[in-house]
Amino acid sequence: MSTPSGGSVGLVEQKEFTFAEDHSFTFECGKPLGPLTLAYETYGELNAARDNAVLVCHALTGDAHLAGYHSGEDKKPGWWDLMVGPGRPLDTNRYFIICSNVLGGCMGSSGPTQIDPATERPFGLNFPMVTIGDMVAAQKKLVEHLGIDTLLAVIGGSMGGMQTLEWTLKYPDAMRTAVVLASTWQHTALSIAFNEVGRQAIMSDPDWNQGDYYGTSVPGHGLAVARMIGHITYLSDASMRQKFGRRLQDRCEISYGFDTDFQIQSYLQYQGRKFVDRFDANSFLYMTKACDYFNVADKWGAGSLTEAFARARAMFMVVSFTSDWLYPTSQSKEMVQAMKKNSLDVSFCEIKADCGHDAFLLPNKRLSTLMRGVMEKATRKGRTS
Amino acid sequence: MSTPSGGSVGLVEQKEFTFAEDHSFTFECGKPLGPLTLAYETYGELNAARDNAVLVCHALTGDAHLAGYHSGEDKKPGWWDLMVGPGRPLDTNRYFIICSNVLGGCMGSSGPTQIDPATERPFGLNFPMVTIGDMVAAQKKLVEHLGIDTLLAVIGGSMGGMQTLEWTLKYPDAMRTAVVLASTWQHTALSIAFNEVGRQAIMSDPDWNQGDYYGTSVPGHGLAVARMIGHITYLSDASMRQKFGRRLQDRCEISYGFDTDFQIQSYLQYQGRKFVDRFDANSFLYMTKACDYFNVADKWGAGSLTEAFARARAMFMVVSFTSDWLYPTSQSKEMVQAMKKNSLDVSFCEIKADCGHDAFLLPNKRLSTLMRGVMEKATRKGRTS
Repeated sequence: MSTPSGGSVGLVEQKEFTFAEDHSFTFECGKPLGPLTLAYETYGELNAARDNAVLVCHALTGDAHLAGYHSGEDKKPGWWDLMVGPGRPLDTNRYFIICSNVLGGCMGSSGPTQIDPATERPFGLNFPMVTIGDMVAAQKKLVEHLGIDTLLAVIGGSMGGMQTLEWTLKYPDAMRTAVVLASTWQHTALSIAFNEVGRQAIMSDPDWNQGDYYGTSVPGHGLAVARMIGHITYLSDASMRQKFGRRLQDRCEISYGFDTDFQIQSYLQYQGRKFVDRFDANSFLYMTKACDYFNVADKWGAGSLTEAFARARAMFMVVSFTSDWLYPTSQSKEMVQAMKKNSLDVSFCEIKADCGHDAFLLPNKRLSTLMRGVMEKATRKGRTS
Repeated sequence: MSTPSGGSVGLVEQKEFTFAEDHSFTFECGKPLGPLTLAYETYGELNAARDNAVLVCHALTGDAHLAGYHSGEDKKPGWWDLMVGPGRPLDTNRYFIICSNVLGGCMGSSGPTQIDPATERPFGLNFPMVTIGDMVAAQKKLVEHLGIDTLLAVIGGSMGGMQTLEWTLKYPDAMRTAVVLASTWQHTALSIAFNEVGRQAIMSDPDWNQGDYYGTSVPGHGLAVARMIGHITYLSDASMRQKFGRRLQDRCEISYGFDTDFQIQSYLQYQGRKFVDRFDANSFLYMTKACDYFNVADKWGAGSLTEAFARARAMFMVVSFTSDWLYPTSQSKEMVQAMKKNSLDVSFCEIKADCGHDAFLLPNKRLSTLMRGVMEKATRKGRTS
């Protein structure tokens, strides 16, 4: 793995944007609620023409902390630091980058952990169901609040890619370019199946208590199992063979018992425990359900994917990864075909990578080059059109 | 789906074989235990030459009830009824077919549900760890008890295929033919990962109580989640799309809630519940661990798969299925190559099937034809050699 080229954005600060204070925000499910808050971060400066803004949408369990460090003591930078900074593909010397925690999340934005003024206790499952469309509608308010009419680009991987697609259909003229990485235009039965098992693991944990556990317990066992399932889908057979194979964990021989024998067991258990410390179980339920409900063809094309993209205006870049079996290349190709049928400007690349679905988050020279290229093209188009 | 050709074996009876009464059976982990019992069934008649016996080994959650009906009220026949009966590929007019529940199982054979004479309570986790090798050693005792020196064939799919491989290496001269379906020579990190998450789901269920739950509770939530994970691995992306797609369950619109929206959710939940009624959670732990420990190269070839098969004498047929991503074709090919390097008589076939790992259990004309062919060849060889 190569270190990212260019520099770090250094110290950054998380901000809050509160909206729907006077008039409630109406969720797609029909429920109204307000005020609502989005936690967000920005990097670089908005230029005078206000045409260099880039919105990055995060994946299932991501947050607004895209790049840089909150303090000098942080051990790790933001989640896509390798892509964002002076001289990096999303060059903060040139672009004004925005990232916000999604509605329904648990990293500073409104969601099930928010206090319900009516009960003075966290909403829990009383928070309205959140869709990808709701996430995007809230982001639009933030973007407007920052004084931006047209984004240079909307970019996202996985669930972030779903938000990106939704942006191009809900607000077709609000961006020049859309970059969709390791994502899909619909959750298939297989993706729903994995999410459902994760939810069942959480909801059958007695500490979940119908979602009303705040201040008393944490459904940690269920949430850990859900995360372990997720982690399997983020890796690939090949990457697991390389990373772990059948290597034993802290022992020379198998234990003939139910303790940890193999490194892969230890890895999954660790990922499960770590996740419980940082993520809210209800929020996980909301995020997975938002993904399961996502289907561009049904929402925007009365069942036809081609019809759905008839309303799009953005220039697209779609990227898939060979070893991603959660959202395989075939699903990216389906949307690329639908875009092409609508004569949209779309480029598609399948990147050879062994590391599975998570590939878009890891150092990858090809992806960096593609990102530089698409940003360059978007900027040129912005100047001449 | 076609109905199986040939007839049913009709009513059958389950029997018991008890061994290690005087001298304990020593498990591979080193622990001795006895007496032990295997539940088994037989179909057809052993001929005078005692050379027409076929042992069928079942998969992870299977049992000895291979074919036919226990009573006129049974709604479903045994698990491989389509393959076993007069005129069927495993023709009971010609062959004497044996199937036993594995050691460590919970369908009549000794395992964690067995009463420990020392405490007069079920063994639970005090039952010795069971390996594929232990299962096969116990089957060997049953086969000897039935008066058979050399089996015409040992046949098994999935975990049954692992037992079949183990038979050919542990008792190289005890069979003429070995048929290995949808199986593998080692559990890879990915297969271990799926099993580990299932075990964690069970062991984090408070009702599991460190395996000591008999008579008081059942860790049903954990076991159901474990089964749901399993079911995902038994199907394929294609079969799930065909069977369920994004079709809704008993509703016209999505619920915007955490109830069941999609048919795939309902299917998985149903499979989970059904499994809890028929299978023991501890036995599930033992079975998955036996699979995770399975590695032919390490056990028989000091790390070399080719060296491992140097001891084999059987004629092999190895069959994989295109959409099986639990034990993909590549793993079958690895063992076929190792067999060929040892000049073994091996035929290999990858069958095109959309239904995933479970394909070997479903009606498949190609598989039936292959099974008839291999049995014919084994019989001919038996007569002349």
